[in-house]
Amino acid sequence: MAKEKKHEVEEEVEAEETMETEEIDIPEVSEVEDLTNKFSEMEDKFLRARAEIANMSNRNKNEREQLIRYRSQDLGKKLLPAIDNLERALATEVTDDQSASLKKGVEMVLESLTVALKEEGITEIKAEGETFDPNLHQAVQTVPAEDDVAPETIVNVLQKGYQLHDRVLRPAMVVVAQ
Amino acid sequence: MAKEKKHEVEEEVEAEETMETEEIDIPEVSEVEDLTNKFSEMEDKFLRARAEIANMSNRNKNEREQLIRYRSQDLGKKLLPAIDNLERALATEVTDDQSASLKKGVEMVLESLTVALKEEGITEIKAEGETFDPNLHQAVQTVPAEDDVAPETIVNVLQKGYQLHDRVLRPAMVVVAQ
Repeated sequence: MAKEKKHEVEEEVEAEETMETEEIDIPEVSEVEDLTNKFSEMEDKFLRARAEIANMSNRNKNEREQLIRYRSQDLGKKLLPAIDNLERALATEVTDDQSASLKKGVEMVLESLTVALKEEGITEIKAEGETFDPNLHQAVQTVPAEDDVAPETIVNVLQKGYQLHDRVLRPAMVVVAQ
Repeated sequence: MAKEKKHEVEEEVEAEETMETEEIDIPEVSEVEDLTNKFSEMEDKFLRARAEIANMSNRNKNEREQLIRYRSQDLGKKLLPAIDNLERALATEVTDDQSASLKKGVEMVLESLTVALKEEGITEIKAEGETFDPNLHQAVQTVPAEDDVAPETIVNVLQKGYQLHDRVLRPAMVVVAQ
């Protein structure tokens, strides 16, 4: 019985199909319209995908450049206290040969560290004698400006500042004339 | 006159259109076929673009991860001679207070440099007492293996080696028992 019922259904479908082809043109026109719409939609999707590829490519290029440009930021920052300590060690007066020889060694190490940092784009922030710039300098003390010093001039550097290209790793700690 | 000519053209177009509808079905079928083909082609282009987007996304993620993972490779490598020099300075015997104080300072600097490198994934390559591995060690000298030392064991390190994660920045220069 179930099989018979299925047969009936198939016949109905066939009847419908015959009816459709008899209704001349109309279904073809709507098929063309449908296909045209489907094509337009797909074309739109493709164009958007292509635009996305171009965007991704640019975005990734920029991201890669930024990552390379600032890659030494973290390690560079961590080296600054070591450099401070070496400079402090060099600032102590020594009177005997042993210490002088040690100091000479420390001086060379400091020089090689500075060169390595510079090659990665890390340089000391100019401070002494410059006009105070809150983006680069941190004023920890002010002194009255003397006659030959313009206000806002940095008269002393308490701790050197460093920047990686345009990014400040650490501002210079300075004394400013006011 | 120009207007008349335009009118003529329009009439021609209309005539063509009428002709097309008179040539029953055939052009519609081929139009449907054409459109179906065009749609398939466009769909194919879209799917390829979408696959390209997925590929780019994966590729860029990997590239970014690699760049971050190995970002300290260049600066780290340049710091190694400075570390060698500091270690050499510490190896010298000192007898007076001035030098001892300087040495203490150098020791602290070395410690802070080592910590900074370690945080970036740069560590000393194990060497003394290890089995010689040509990927990590460079044999600069061999000595006869004594009774209690297995052949290919590293018995002395002439210069420390360093690696950044799995990458060797500099192999260890070693003396191997054979």
